[in-house]
Amino acid sequence: MQALKDRIRSEGKNLGHGILKVDGFINHQVDPTLMNACGAEFARLFANIGATKILTAEISGIAPALMTGMHMGLPVVYARKSKPITMPDQVYLTLAPSHTKGRMVELIISPEFLAGGEKVLIIDDFLASGATIAGLVRLAQAAGANIVGIGTLIEKTFEGGRALLNPLGLPIESLVCVASMDDGEIVFQE
Amino acid sequence: MQALKDRIRSEGKNLGHGILKVDGFINHQVDPTLMNACGAEFARLFANIGATKILTAEISGIAPALMTGMHMGLPVVYARKSKPITMPDQVYLTLAPSHTKGRMVELIISPEFLAGGEKVLIIDDFLASGATIAGLVRLAQAAGANIVGIGTLIEKTFEGGRALLNPLGLPIESLVCVASMDDGEIVFQE
Repeated sequence: MQALKDRIRSEGKNLGHGILKVDGFINHQVDPTLMNACGAEFARLFANIGATKILTAEISGIAPALMTGMHMGLPVVYARKSKPITMPDQVYLTLAPSHTKGRMVELIISPEFLAGGEKVLIIDDFLASGATIAGLVRLAQAAGANIVGIGTLIEKTFEGGRALLNPLGLPIESLVCVASMDDGEIVFQE
Repeated sequence: MQALKDRIRSEGKNLGHGILKVDGFINHQVDPTLMNACGAEFARLFANIGATKILTAEISGIAPALMTGMHMGLPVVYARKSKPITMPDQVYLTLAPSHTKGRMVELIISPEFLAGGEKVLIIDDFLASGATIAGLVRLAQAAGANIVGIGTLIEKTFEGGRALLNPLGLPIESLVCVASMDDGEIVFQE
């Protein structure tokens, strides 16, 4: 998606070790106009998969998931990383490594909001190692829901996440693919 | 706002101790259509305050803030509760008590995204004790920014947050006010 690629080119920073800083428009400061356009694009890409719910992980998945949900007219569930007191005692919980936190984090969903038979479209900001999305897949499967698609804003193709998720046999769409971040550069896959 | 009040009436739950469970449409599962309508209403209420940026706190402030930012054409900054590795070493940080977590949490903003002279509209999901919003006010003031308004989805008037914030002399708008949650009920202020 050209608008997102342009923005990464102008404002994204390669911090080394595969860390792409996009916190000026995605995950600390957010550009709602850009996120709205990304949501519209996901809605177009996934128009025919029959999704009944959008699933993401807090925190930085919320903005693109919310905009996608708005354009598709679907509710959005974000997996929590700590269990709030408003959640029932019995939950779906899995562990996933966090790239930016350098440790394992919990992903928790209340059974109230993910039921058997739902058709789940997973939306997140990054597809890197695929570990967070694989965690969301496990949660949805534990709930008896079906995953029908995976969409991410930015895929770092050199981290191998797609190979991890491909065996699911699902459509995986990334709005922008970054092929390499060696030598301080950000090289897009055209 | 009638649509939000109706939703609280039909799906909100009084869990006791002043805890209002709205995680079926605001803060675990999110209804993007309802949040979009709330954002449009905030944009209408704050159309003339000259805001240049929306400020909120992760996690549950993000949805209403993002929709407000979309309708006002403004960037949204959400204060982080832990410092990611993409953030510079020198940050604005304050502490605020979390009602639902039962402990103090950090609120952190990068100086990259909140500058002196900005006119900040604070949007959050709840106005209860006002402690989180007061923390956001401190962060904005530390950055030399001006607060120009405060908007929340749901105000629990019996927790006194408005009295804490009134000395700021700012417009404070809540889309729905809950006057009492005694005896297991949810009593709206008409």
